[in-house]
Amino acid sequence: MKKVLFATTALVASAGIASAQGVSISGWAEMGIVGGSVYGDEVQFWTDVDIEFRMSGETDNGLTFGAGVDLDENTAFSGTTQGGEFIFISGAFGTLTMGDTDGAFDWALTEVGMGASIDDAHTSHWGYSGNSSFDGFGGKDGQVARYDYSFGDFAFAVSAELDDTGTYDPTLAIGAKYSTSFGSVDLGFGLAYVTSEDVNGTAEGIGGSVDVTFAGGFMAVVNYTSIDGLFYNPGGVGAREVDSHMAIGLGYTTGAISVSANYGVFTGVAADSDAMGYGLQAGYDLGGGAEIQFGYGYSEDQLTDTTADQFSLGVAMSF
Amino acid sequence: MKKVLFATTALVASAGIASAQGVSISGWAEMGIVGGSVYGDEVQFWTDVDIEFRMSGETDNGLTFGAGVDLDENTAFSGTTQGGEFIFISGAFGTLTMGDTDGAFDWALTEVGMGASIDDAHTSHWGYSGNSSFDGFGGKDGQVARYDYSFGDFAFAVSAELDDTGTYDPTLAIGAKYSTSFGSVDLGFGLAYVTSEDVNGTAEGIGGSVDVTFAGGFMAVVNYTSIDGLFYNPGGVGAREVDSHMAIGLGYTTGAISVSANYGVFTGVAADSDAMGYGLQAGYDLGGGAEIQFGYGYSEDQLTDTTADQFSLGVAMSF
Amino acid sequence: MKKVLFATTALVASAGIASAQGVSISGWAEMGIVGGSVYGDEVQFWTDVDIEFRMSGETDNGLTFGAGVDLDENTAFSGTTQGGEFIFISGAFGTLTMGDTDGAFDWALTEVGMGASIDDAHTSHWGYSGNSSFDGFGGKDGQVARYDYSFGDFAFAVSAELDDTGTYDPTLAIGAKYSTSFGSVDLGFGLAYVTSEDVNGTAEGIGGSVDVTFAGGFMAVVNYTSIDGLFYNPGGVGAREVDSHMAIGLGYTTGAISVSANYGVFTGVAADSDAMGYGLQAGYDLGGGAEIQFGYGYSEDQLTDTTADQFSLGVAMSF
Repeated sequence: MKKVLFATTALVASAGIASAQGVSISGWAEMGIVGGSVYGDEVQFWTDVDIEFRMSGETDNGLTFGAGVDLDENTAFSGTTQGGEFIFISGAFGTLTMGDTDGAFDWALTEVGMGASIDDAHTSHWGYSGNSSFDGFGGKDGQVARYDYSFGDFAFAVSAELDDTGTYDPTLAIGAKYSTSFGSVDLGFGLAYVTSEDVNGTAEGIGGSVDVTFAGGFMAVVNYTSIDGLFYNPGGVGAREVDSHMAIGLGYTTGAISVSANYGVFTGVAADSDAMGYGLQAGYDLGGGAEIQFGYGYSEDQLTDTTADQFSLGVAMSF
Repeated sequence: MKKVLFATTALVASAGIASAQGVSISGWAEMGIVGGSVYGDEVQFWTDVDIEFRMSGETDNGLTFGAGVDLDENTAFSGTTQGGEFIFISGAFGTLTMGDTDGAFDWALTEVGMGASIDDAHTSHWGYSGNSSFDGFGGKDGQVARYDYSFGDFAFAVSAELDDTGTYDPTLAIGAKYSTSFGSVDLGFGLAYVTSEDVNGTAEGIGGSVDVTFAGGFMAVVNYTSIDGLFYNPGGVGAREVDSHMAIGLGYTTGAISVSANYGVFTGVAADSDAMGYGLQAGYDLGGGAEIQFGYGYSEDQLTDTTADQFSLGVAMSF
Repeated sequence: MKKVLFATTALVASAGIASAQGVSISGWAEMGIVGGSVYGDEVQFWTDVDIEFRMSGETDNGLTFGAGVDLDENTAFSGTTQGGEFIFISGAFGTLTMGDTDGAFDWALTEVGMGASIDDAHTSHWGYSGNSSFDGFGGKDGQVARYDYSFGDFAFAVSAELDDTGTYDPTLAIGAKYSTSFGSVDLGFGLAYVTSEDVNGTAEGIGGSVDVTFAGGFMAVVNYTSIDGLFYNPGGVGAREVDSHMAIGLGYTTGAISVSANYGVFTGVAADSDAMGYGLQAGYDLGGGAEIQFGYGYSEDQLTDTTADQFSLGVAMSF
């Protein structure tokens, strides 16, 4: 995505964008068709667009700070809730980020979804967690504060999300990441713990991820999370208590072409209460920021004996 | 309107905006007063403003693509509906545009409204069609896909607007344009057909437009459309089936001054069921993007024996 | 706040921003915590952000014109109401501003609040008027038209805000300002009158302000307004008729540190019906547009025998 840095210094003298301070603007757009049961089994047109504002600055002491908001984030402008905005300040002490940012659990683990489809068909199935099952847990407002710090190949983070009504305990999380290489193979490991509370009492999750990238353009990711006290209701037709979540993703890129697949399952505590699904994605890079994208997602719920699917085909553009 | 192209290349090296890729920003504002029965016969202040984001790029193969959204288009960010956004891709094969764009009927015909008034008083009367009577027909969401192609002085287009619920047939349209000159006189012709469906069954329209521009600054436009199955309810007080629509517009520009007038009538199938109106407009160009604008519109409905009027006077600014 | 002027001329030739015409963009962000009874006595995260669009141009005759709207002003796009947008045109005759702009009363008087806190805690207490008690009086829509003119150290303004329904008289105001210096002491005086109407009949206010700035970084402001026909209902628990408002503010800046305090009281017509409060604020400037900000506000209402408080601590950033 082309990022354009607007700064007074860059405009009056076309040198030294490095020290620039200001607002940068980028954008994206998607056009195509979508279909499947998720869309009422009617093929429909798809048109979506957004503009992204990113701000950055530096204090006299060398701390960097910044913020971001998108044009579609119409609810970002209330101070005590989160509507998409994020703000950070960073220095030798690490980075503090607040707002619409990953909690430490989500931050530490690598998701199994790869590539993009215009309607996210491949990462919207009922078996996909994105490691974000605890976001907004117990009706919290999604306003996360996360501190993270990295040293060499290690990084760790802690995070909190408060219940503004004071009814339930906050969501607290801690996570760590480690990356390394063996020859031409890059390896990444993530480990994280999260705890929260809602009307059903305390809930927690402990999870890990491993991601492997081979020199030939092949990538694989595995996630596993052991879960307590989380109820899941995909498709809105039946809630069940979740015992664990497992997911695997595979991707391959060669030249302009990229393809990926992922599978995930929420294993229920009760028998025959699993929710699962898989996603497929393919992209062809046209250059200049445009890509043809195909996506498919299939979902299945043992508890309610229901299935769902969706597909999309179109052009995604970044500016 | 000043269009400002922001691009990395333009900032780091002040040469070669031609190949630039990125987001451009422009804006407009209006201030003044409005009045008439449309505003409850109270003279009111008028202040309006908008910011327009336009994006453009080019693929490795030389296809151009782009998109646009305005700051006031708060509902542009849902993929399966249209809230003002448009996206296109263009090449030797022609241009495919999706979203908030004219259907082929509207695209082919030239509207009779000329010039601008701050509240569009001159193009808001009950006899004004803008050749867009079939937009959103049968509750469709306004998400249009149009393909158009031009060769020399000819151009044609086809378009579709789907019913996302699958209840009614889509709106389909086909149109053609031709422009030519006789001495110092420029002539334009448009011809188009549109068909759609709603709760009253199939509807269709076939229409044409002729526009003439003389060297002395005089312009005239005539529209005629034969219509079946369309019910019209101006002012919300009484629907009637429409048999045809006819409109004429005249404009004249000399130096900083421009004036125009237009008249239109929806002829009803039943006797004494016509809805008609006329608009007047005048502008004085102050230079630099500012113009003083006056507008007036008068409406009359035979069926309900009601009238309405509105006027505006103010300054329009473009940036 | 860094203002970045985007203009075609500045991009193609990096000289001569002075004559540039176009759209400029700046932004701000805040992160921190807030608490107190105003927030349900729960400490909460605070994240807020905005993007500001400012437009400017010049006519052939040398009139300057411009407009502004912010990203959070989602309701700015209706012509007959005000949602945050403002538009102006300026020349030798003075300046005409419409939309979200101070009426002549608010324009003439200097507020007692100084400095900033992320949630405006220090200027949100029940004794704070901001000289804006007549804004939107009688359900008016906040769309102000103000004409102001300055000559040397004097300036005056007149303004109107209409009742779009025609039920009540408009809000009309007139104000004057004068600034002068005695040695190293800067003095400012403001005097203004406002009248309006609502369901309770005609209301009016006549007020004045004095502000003093000493060379050593000390500043003091006093406001007094005599009021008729205004009913005030802080905290939404009990309305009382107001006889007068008085406020005082003190501020001090040294190096990167700034502190301020203010106190204000709405004196009720009836005995024991005063509403009052005070605010405290401190800032530490980190440079580069970032400042650590603390704010506190305390409110007390004699009529309802209630109190309220709020505090905030965080980092404010401007870009």
